[in-house]
Amino acid sequence: MTEISIVGLGLMGTALAGTLLKAGHEVTVWNRTDSKTEPLVAMGARRAANLAEAVRPGSLVIVCVLDYDTVHGLLGQTELRGVTLVNLTSGRPEEARRTAEWAEARGAGYLDGGVMAVPQMIGAPGALILYSGSREVFDRFAEPLGQLAEARFVDTDPGLAPLLDMAMLTGMYGQIAGITQGFALVRSAGLPLRDFASTLLVPWLRAMGELAHRWAEEVDAGQWGTDVANLGVNKVALDSIALAMREQGIEGNLLAPFKHLVDKRVADGHQDQGLQSLVEELHPGR
Amino acid sequence: MTEISIVGLGLMGTALAGTLLKAGHEVTVWNRTDSKTEPLVAMGARRAANLAEAVRPGSLVIVCVLDYDTVHGLLGQTELRGVTLVNLTSGRPEEARRTAEWAEARGAGYLDGGVMAVPQMIGAPGALILYSGSREVFDRFAEPLGQLAEARFVDTDPGLAPLLDMAMLTGMYGQIAGITQGFALVRSAGLPLRDFASTLLVPWLRAMGELAHRWAEEVDAGQWGTDVANLGVNKVALDSIALAMREQGIEGNLLAPFKHLVDKRVADGHQDQGLQSLVEELHPGR
Repeated sequence: MTEISIVGLGLMGTALAGTLLKAGHEVTVWNRTDSKTEPLVAMGARRAANLAEAVRPGSLVIVCVLDYDTVHGLLGQTELRGVTLVNLTSGRPEEARRTAEWAEARGAGYLDGGVMAVPQMIGAPGALILYSGSREVFDRFAEPLGQLAEARFVDTDPGLAPLLDMAMLTGMYGQIAGITQGFALVRSAGLPLRDFASTLLVPWLRAMGELAHRWAEEVDAGQWGTDVANLGVNKVALDSIALAMREQGIEGNLLAPFKHLVDKRVADGHQDQGLQSLVEELHPGR
Repeated sequence: MTEISIVGLGLMGTALAGTLLKAGHEVTVWNRTDSKTEPLVAMGARRAANLAEAVRPGSLVIVCVLDYDTVHGLLGQTELRGVTLVNLTSGRPEEARRTAEWAEARGAGYLDGGVMAVPQMIGAPGALILYSGSREVFDRFAEPLGQLAEARFVDTDPGLAPLLDMAMLTGMYGQIAGITQGFALVRSAGLPLRDFASTLLVPWLRAMGELAHRWAEEVDAGQWGTDVANLGVNKVALDSIALAMREQGIEGNLLAPFKHLVDKRVADGHQDQGLQSLVEELHPGR
């Protein structure tokens, strides 16, 4: 069985290591702060005394640290020939491409990954990891990678998994910003959030999220019209929301730049277009 | 059967009138621009020659226009005694409260409503309308209101349906901002959006939206810790996303104020707290 090492034992790295241990793999763990290895050693992991013990020729090294600078800081002094790196650290497409070149120049196989799950989801249905870079590495380690989450190879360009990862995170952060601002409004009325979330907000966001399918097709086709609610109508709603936030004593409006984009588009004469047309303001396509 | 009038035939008003006609109700329609009545007259609606013909004693008048100023502009010159107004115009809690007082002072029954649906959903499963104000009006007109959408009475304070409506819209606009910004990132890589939306973004947003249940309970309980991903980790991701957006040539970052809020919270020493703690920055509760 492949020797697998996990480098970086934050919440995510710990979840990755624990899942592989439960699946019966031999797992070596290393973390800058050594105490983080203890729960995993109790589960049967081997503790590497130093980083070189975790990064050995022939081994699969799964790296999950804070950022790519940390990846380079840790692995820059380590022999990488014959090692396979699967880098699940979050980062930008450019960083992934540079790191792939850097690893390959040192004789390591390299696969980049974007983890689309919270740590609690690792090893459970619904977790997804996007991979890009070496198809050969992906195929060779399909079994252990498949234990962690659904493993989906998206492209040989190592930058693509991080790009899609970031695009999904961006969607999520927007959703969280909306939830946060909506929660503040309900809180300002002295109401508990629990019922609001379960009976109103979550089902509503789920239903409205389905609109993205159609918008995607419309943007792909360059169709900016709408039969749902045009930018003019949305502008009225966004103005009203901004005013209500102030009336309710809420500090700040996380929707402000979105509102400004709608305002600009309406001021430019596009009030009859749909919300999908806002993408055009951010990137004209190519 | 109750005489029902629909005042305002935008996309939503037209959907409301069409649904009631299909359900067998006698419906009178009025719109400032008269031509909008034609498709509904073809379906069997009665066209009111003027507003007074649509607002008659004993009738249920469903108003769905652009904003509350328009409501007052239209109905301010009209006799309201004996009329029941159900106002589905979007607006702020304060506007709903003032309009309820105003209508009741003129002898009209008043129920405010927030439509949580796009026009295409009216009369179909999944559509929801929140009502607040007169419980008596809600009970008396339960049958026709139930034809439009699931009808949910939330409070006798007429401002509450609009407040919950706005909080849900706020969540939706945040979600849309995230989708828009994420789409721009994928578009900048020259990829079509259709597959990204259907195989990645929509399922991801649905899964991540479930986090709101837990955050709601945590905010209600004043619990700011996390075992998912703390603000420090989220700050790194948001910094990275902002930089990637610039590298990909994307104009503007709709997440900017959300990022600033995370930055502020981390700078204030709360890096170990969870994202749910951001609500505290916007409103301290009461």
